[in-house]
Amino acid sequence: MSNTLLSPEQLLQQLQWRYATKQFDPSQKIPDQVWDALEQSLVLAPSSFGLQPWKFFVVVSPEVRQSLLPHSWGQTQVVDASHLVVLAIKKDVNAADVDRFMARTAEVRQVEIASLAGYANVIKGFLENPKDPAFDVNDWAARQVYIALGQLMTSAALLGIDTCPIEGFLPDQYDQILGLAEQGYGAIVVCALGYRHREDKYALLPKVRFKPTEMIGVIES
Amino acid sequence: MSNTLLSPEQLLQQLQWRYATKQFDPSQKIPDQVWDALEQSLVLAPSSFGLQPWKFFVVVSPEVRQSLLPHSWGQTQVVDASHLVVLAIKKDVNAADVDRFMARTAEVRQVEIASLAGYANVIKGFLENPKDPAFDVNDWAARQVYIALGQLMTSAALLGIDTCPIEGFLPDQYDQILGLAEQGYGAIVVCALGYRHREDKYALLPKVRFKPTEMIGVIES
Repeated sequence: MSNTLLSPEQLLQQLQWRYATKQFDPSQKIPDQVWDALEQSLVLAPSSFGLQPWKFFVVVSPEVRQSLLPHSWGQTQVVDASHLVVLAIKKDVNAADVDRFMARTAEVRQVEIASLAGYANVIKGFLENPKDPAFDVNDWAARQVYIALGQLMTSAALLGIDTCPIEGFLPDQYDQILGLAEQGYGAIVVCALGYRHREDKYALLPKVRFKPTEMIGVIES
Repeated sequence: MSNTLLSPEQLLQQLQWRYATKQFDPSQKIPDQVWDALEQSLVLAPSSFGLQPWKFFVVVSPEVRQSLLPHSWGQTQVVDASHLVVLAIKKDVNAADVDRFMARTAEVRQVEIASLAGYANVIKGFLENPKDPAFDVNDWAARQVYIALGQLMTSAALLGIDTCPIEGFLPDQYDQILGLAEQGYGAIVVCALGYRHREDKYALLPKVRFKPTEMIGVIES
């Protein structure tokens, strides 16, 4: 068992503190060391089979961020936040991606790649012969990306960094502007990160959640 | 800006400590106070529009957990872990759900429900007249559930609690056994939580991730 660094109360304090930031303070930048940890929280995010069917694009250029704004329903977080990440799926993940993952596994764990053949075949079977005929590999990858989004937002809240997740954007336009399509990636969701503006009135509104008794079902028999 | 309770190094230490636990110690139970915080991490999870198109079912009954095992590709975490949560979507989310959310918003924020009509109409338009003709409301809700899964796993890691996310199960069987279908919910993903068994050899394997330079793209121009 790990030593817990945080009490349950401290965790909840930060999760309560978090909100979808509407207005960022453009003058405040996330320090490099904190940003590095947030990038790592993406890299370390769990995914099905550990396959990591994704890539995370950090848009540094202010000009490029400006050019995304008209394709983001005018949400100014895209330009005002300290950092902007576009979370993308690797499109049409297939056996070659599994092989690449196995090569990496063999490298990291210092084992023969042949010893991983059983696991590789399980994943390839999952992708190529899905049990559910409605299985869509890009939908599946998109769900994984949302795990990474969750880990990123929770990690940020723990480090005192504000976030705003953004689904309201035009993926095709993003893919074109950022050059994702030609690399085989597709934008799924966006996250702006930084510091809330002191005038963002949304920061002061009570968080709205349905009652815990409605959201948590306990199955006792 | 919030005071940060955790350093970037401490965050990463816990994210590195986390792994998909294959074997739980059935004798170790998560203390109530810690479990309550993990349930709250689900309740507090962000979702698109704040709509919370989900419900989280905690399966307490050992007999019911045993009955899920044959529908879980034999993954014994389903019975051995301290706690088991089935994360479900509310199926076919529609205008009535938006109204319910608005009623709750008016209650929590102590405003007139009429003052929320504009926001309600935005959400209803999103659901009923999607810009993308391929939009599927249940797929959309499922993605939101994965945010909650991410927040849950990250929160657990921070509190020193092990997790195993499980996609390998038969949703229809789960829905039937747990009575979700008749309530309008559908199981999407499962998470087992507890304490790793000291004999779980997977705990000692180095975590496999592609190189950060391959997973993080920096767009500078």
